[in-house]
Amino acid sequence: MNVTLTNIYAERCQRAQAEMAHAGVDYLFVGPGSDLRYLTGTPGMDNERMMMLVIPQQGEPAMVVPALEKLATSQFASYFELLDWRDGEGPQGRLKQILGDVVGREVRAAVNGHLWSMFLLDLQTLLPKGNFSNADTVLKKLKITKTPDEIKLLREVAAMADHTFSELITMPFEGRAEREILSDVNNLLLKYGQEQMLFCIVGSGPNGAQPHHHTGDRIIRKGEPVVLDFGGSYHGYCSDMTRMVVVGDKPNDSEYEQVYKTVDAALEAAFAYVKPNVSCESVDAQARNHITEAGYGEYFVHRTGHGIGMEVHEDPYIVGGNQTLLQPGMAFSIEPGIYLPERFGVRIEDIVIVTDTAGERINLSSHQMIYVK
Amino acid sequence: MNVTLTNIYAERCQRAQAEMAHAGVDYLFVGPGSDLRYLTGTPGMDNERMMMLVIPQQGEPAMVVPALEKLATSQFASYFELLDWRDGEGPQGRLKQILGDVVGREVRAAVNGHLWSMFLLDLQTLLPKGNFSNADTVLKKLKITKTPDEIKLLREVAAMADHTFSELITMPFEGRAEREILSDVNNLLLKYGQEQMLFCIVGSGPNGAQPHHHTGDRIIRKGEPVVLDFGGSYHGYCSDMTRMVVVGDKPNDSEYEQVYKTVDAALEAAFAYVKPNVSCESVDAQARNHITEAGYGEYFVHRTGHGIGMEVHEDPYIVGGNQTLLQPGMAFSIEPGIYLPERFGVRIEDIVIVTDTAGERINLSSHQMIYVK
Repeated sequence: MNVTLTNIYAERCQRAQAEMAHAGVDYLFVGPGSDLRYLTGTPGMDNERMMMLVIPQQGEPAMVVPALEKLATSQFASYFELLDWRDGEGPQGRLKQILGDVVGREVRAAVNGHLWSMFLLDLQTLLPKGNFSNADTVLKKLKITKTPDEIKLLREVAAMADHTFSELITMPFEGRAEREILSDVNNLLLKYGQEQMLFCIVGSGPNGAQPHHHTGDRIIRKGEPVVLDFGGSYHGYCSDMTRMVVVGDKPNDSEYEQVYKTVDAALEAAFAYVKPNVSCESVDAQARNHITEAGYGEYFVHRTGHGIGMEVHEDPYIVGGNQTLLQPGMAFSIEPGIYLPERFGVRIEDIVIVTDTAGERINLSSHQMIYVK
Repeated sequence: MNVTLTNIYAERCQRAQAEMAHAGVDYLFVGPGSDLRYLTGTPGMDNERMMMLVIPQQGEPAMVVPALEKLATSQFASYFELLDWRDGEGPQGRLKQILGDVVGREVRAAVNGHLWSMFLLDLQTLLPKGNFSNADTVLKKLKITKTPDEIKLLREVAAMADHTFSELITMPFEGRAEREILSDVNNLLLKYGQEQMLFCIVGSGPNGAQPHHHTGDRIIRKGEPVVLDFGGSYHGYCSDMTRMVVVGDKPNDSEYEQVYKTVDAALEAAFAYVKPNVSCESVDAQARNHITEAGYGEYFVHRTGHGIGMEVHEDPYIVGGNQTLLQPGMAFSIEPGIYLPERFGVRIEDIVIVTDTAGERINLSSHQMIYVK
């Protein structure tokens, strides 16, 4: 393990402990996933065998690991002890060993939001007087603004997505199934350096009117708009971008161009509004007002965006009611959309970083209308 | 929606309600994932927007869905009402609407084990007098034995994995990175009809000694054994198989052949023991005793197997301490392994179905030692 990296994780743990003191949390329990990766360097193994980092507000952290993960995990155990358990034995004994006489006491515990409930129920059984809360309240403070190293990774992974899109639009669309385009995106993301594709929505024609369409076997036809929303990760950091293409020379729905321009202008209005100390909900309002004024308000059925980092969706959410003020280093999507049922949908999405004075786009693919074969 | 399929899901819900009555559960809460797919036909969307099927022990089920998932979900809403909520509004109002004056009462609630803790914490806030447990106790009764239709799908998805392996071993291994082999497996699983690859371990040489090795950039060399453990899904049902290959004409570790034969014989001993009313732990003991008697007991660091269905790992677990008796229709892996640190590992894995009289293997690839280029 690289010494510098080791220090990053130990330092993040110390910052988490400081936030725990501030928030009144005695123990932080973190299972597999991006929070574990943020705090240790490894996401762990997301399965039915308990793997759990235990961080006390004061004192030494420790991690419970299945015996068969111990060797792989040990290289990440830079600031905590590993206590392994074998199949047939169960993790409870190891947890009790870590918690000592805290078991049975009143204790304020926080768990990472994505932890499987089966493990939270185990913890609640072990700590019957525990008062459990969502660790996002602690970890959000650390994760919501990105360091320069994190921003560098977000830029790199976004560039891989841009390269993917540039090559994708040279490929044929007409007559192919949505699923085949998804497969192209997968191969291109890997070709340009991403570790894995995390999702890919290919919403052709009327399927585009479902914001979260499940990419399927539908054959793409001439004249149809296609929503392309895809992302993947690199060193744990995620990309997420959406672009539209039209198959052939001309969209078959005469309203498409107007809808496209409305969505694009809404994105630009929200983007232009981004700067430190502006609230998340006011950025949402910029996009929403533009779309509402153009007469499409009822067809913009989701928030304007979401934070991004080691999760595709994380704080800060760009949504009505979120009064969080933007700060330099925050990273989020701006992705307004208009969805006309049974006709088509339009969404355009860029990832934006908050600088000291404004917003900076890290997806660089053009917003011009794009026609493919 | 096909009427027959609709009836399957409504019938599963009724069986769940009967089990709830038996187990003393008043409400079942099921979020995205395989349990939701089992009960409705759709796995839903696993993200921060709450999507939750609520099944009362008596009365009508309902599902809370984000507005932007409503259209996609409606085709699966064969026996329950959909209550959608919009970004900025939150799902709590809809949940209260479903639960009515149950909020505030003592209620015995069960949640699916993979539900994100953030949602369980929300439910616990909404139902402060709730007594929460793991819904696996209810759903296990339904899911642990497979119907003939489910077994047909498990056979089909296993056959796709066998085809993948047969073609994979015609490809070159020497001089290529583990990650490239993973990419081949991915493409082949899709080629032979799987919907997605779920995991792929390529553990070459010493990496094979880590049962859950994270496939990486290591270059595979002549004479090395390689562990190939991969799986994916088809109509939601999973495959999982492990085979060994040796690169070149001869393993460079003279103990390899002996270890390989020991693991294979352990698998066969466990397989031969499978029949109805035999306990899971006794199947584990067959494999374990064989390996222990051969002098490798300390290097078999995991259980002998796990159930498989809509999850790669589910009940019944073939592990010491599990006294569950096998019944016709149960499906599980038998996958003993021996891991010699810093040298190599050997694991062989087949999926087995319990018939009325014995075990039937659904992975048909040979157990002969296989040499690749």
